[in-house]
Amino acid sequence: MNAVGLVVEYNPFHNGHRYHLRQAKKVSGAEVTVAVMSGNFTQRGEPTIVDKWARAKAAVMSGVDLVIELPIFYAVQPAHRFAAGALRLLAALNVNSVVFGAEHPQWDFEHLVKAEKQFNQEDFNQYNATYATQFNQQLKAQTGVTLVDPNDILAFAYTKAKVQHNYQFDLLPIQRQGSNYHDKDINGEIASASAIRQALLGGNSYRRAVPSVMADYLAQIKSIPSWEQLYPLLRNQLIQAPISTLQATYLMAEGLEYRMKDAAQRSLDFDSFMKYTKTKRYTYAHLLRVCLYTLLQITQAEVDQHYKDPYLHVLAFNQLGRQYLHEVKKQVGTPLITKVDQDLRDGLLNLDYRAGKLYQLFTPVEQDLKHPPVIID
Amino acid sequence: MNAVGLVVEYNPFHNGHRYHLRQAKKVSGAEVTVAVMSGNFTQRGEPTIVDKWARAKAAVMSGVDLVIELPIFYAVQPAHRFAAGALRLLAALNVNSVVFGAEHPQWDFEHLVKAEKQFNQEDFNQYNATYATQFNQQLKAQTGVTLVDPNDILAFAYTKAKVQHNYQFDLLPIQRQGSNYHDKDINGEIASASAIRQALLGGNSYRRAVPSVMADYLAQIKSIPSWEQLYPLLRNQLIQAPISTLQATYLMAEGLEYRMKDAAQRSLDFDSFMKYTKTKRYTYAHLLRVCLYTLLQITQAEVDQHYKDPYLHVLAFNQLGRQYLHEVKKQVGTPLITKVDQDLRDGLLNLDYRAGKLYQLFTPVEQDLKHPPVIID
Repeated sequence: MNAVGLVVEYNPFHNGHRYHLRQAKKVSGAEVTVAVMSGNFTQRGEPTIVDKWARAKAAVMSGVDLVIELPIFYAVQPAHRFAAGALRLLAALNVNSVVFGAEHPQWDFEHLVKAEKQFNQEDFNQYNATYATQFNQQLKAQTGVTLVDPNDILAFAYTKAKVQHNYQFDLLPIQRQGSNYHDKDINGEIASASAIRQALLGGNSYRRAVPSVMADYLAQIKSIPSWEQLYPLLRNQLIQAPISTLQATYLMAEGLEYRMKDAAQRSLDFDSFMKYTKTKRYTYAHLLRVCLYTLLQITQAEVDQHYKDPYLHVLAFNQLGRQYLHEVKKQVGTPLITKVDQDLRDGLLNLDYRAGKLYQLFTPVEQDLKHPPVIID
Repeated sequence: MNAVGLVVEYNPFHNGHRYHLRQAKKVSGAEVTVAVMSGNFTQRGEPTIVDKWARAKAAVMSGVDLVIELPIFYAVQPAHRFAAGALRLLAALNVNSVVFGAEHPQWDFEHLVKAEKQFNQEDFNQYNATYATQFNQQLKAQTGVTLVDPNDILAFAYTKAKVQHNYQFDLLPIQRQGSNYHDKDINGEIASASAIRQALLGGNSYRRAVPSVMADYLAQIKSIPSWEQLYPLLRNQLIQAPISTLQATYLMAEGLEYRMKDAAQRSLDFDSFMKYTKTKRYTYAHLLRVCLYTLLQITQAEVDQHYKDPYLHVLAFNQLGRQYLHEVKKQVGTPLITKVDQDLRDGLLNLDYRAGKLYQLFTPVEQDLKHPPVIID
């Protein structure tokens, strides 16, 4: 079967995603759609609004045929690692094409990727600027282009990963439709995920912007998962753990462990903590990711190990998805996981399992151990 | 000045404590009363109902002249270590006597202490019985007495510590008055701390059983500090920390770290967690203490180190207390701390500091750093 891959967060799944899905089928001519979706934490390091099972179910009920989890060590990462991880899984699944939205789909992303090879690495040494800022200074000098829109940045990262690994699928950028990512209001049936989360927070209606299955899930939320709720756990870890433990945390570098420990000692709420921690050197999203890895006590060594061992954790599928799984099963070299047993809990899937246990602060649902895929027939 | 020492939790300070205080002055003939009081966690390992500053203030406003904090590594301990730690501080403060309530003040506790020396240590090997049960089996065989009432157990421990260290002060047991420790109702002006906590939990009146200063503090409590509230932090630590970290925790022994990790993975609330963890081998209080040390990531090595380095952290005093401090200052070999600076935070007082930071989950009040003593003139 001709399959198209999508890389998604679906936080929450909304009508814009449904539109994007139809476009993806159209431009790719695919019979089956495979989505690689973040688990319970977003790329920015925030807890998702509803858990991965609810989001996967809404996706399949809205036309996606197969949903695979993007493991936390690929999902909670800057764009280039997020994109590389997602494409690695889609390549393992033998998709024929990958469709993604971009703010400037007309750009020649391969040209930009080639330009990056000429960058002078020694110029990335400004301690008062983020990596992205320094990257764009060099890209602009070489090509006249700057990558600022989030989906353009991802498009670049997909292209780079494809070139690097010589993936055989086609990359098909399409124009991002409807509301912008940063739009805060719901003005029609298409609204951004961010606008929907805002509406939910403000007690405003979001129903016309999401399919009814997702609306029902959202209606059940008692409080929206947030870092404010995770903060007591983070604060205690930063205060009680010895510096050596904090130093071993994935992404913790350049003395950030001292800065964060100090900020935790002073700050009783997450907002103050982040204000105290933020510098020009790091983006807010980077710091959120460090916070998450700190809470999960995930070390550099653990990420290095898991990075080498990808797997395909099946979250949801319909009949077409099942057929596709059946078809590719024999060719797939990557472990295909439909049920997490104790060996997987303690081994291959350990980091996602731990993330799921943290996410249980927001839901009683057991996230991984023995949780079967959602099947929509 | 002739000083009498008291060992207290004051959780909360109530009229029974005021009565006990007057009795202590009477039987000892002392001019000044010095109380060594648990900080923000009780001997059982539970968070106190209001913080140590409020409890110390209520005590001094009710007639105690000087309140010293019993450091966490002495306070959150079984009776024998709790008693030994408290007497060590009272000895350092040169008190002339120590008065304490006992259910059987007429018993010859020195005789019981001598009997213990004849115990066969090899008989303490029943894995399905607590230490206390095995201790009483032997004590009964030798003396006919069993120590079951909590204040008798403490009386025994005080006597043992005095004999062991040859302390020069007198031990003066007095009859415990009024309600029993386990009484659940408030029947008059004298009620147990436990009955007052129950009244507070149930929304019933406790005013006539406590001095007005304590009643005012209790009236401000929004939710009563509990392990249920600490559980998300404990659960995450037990799940995310590697077994090696948990094993290093003070009091964690005999594979309890595996049992607790497993219980945390299964249990979404503290009650289920404790039901799953409890065995005949350990008392509920012992397990609570292990939970607390786990949350504070306090290791055996840290407790061993701090155990050797006692200090006197002054929480509150009146004019008489100030005079007494002035008088004993030169003779006291133990550091006398009236204000916690950054060196003390990171050094001598580090464990109490960390416990105070955890307690901030229940109060915005900074517990140690730069907190001056309460002075009632």
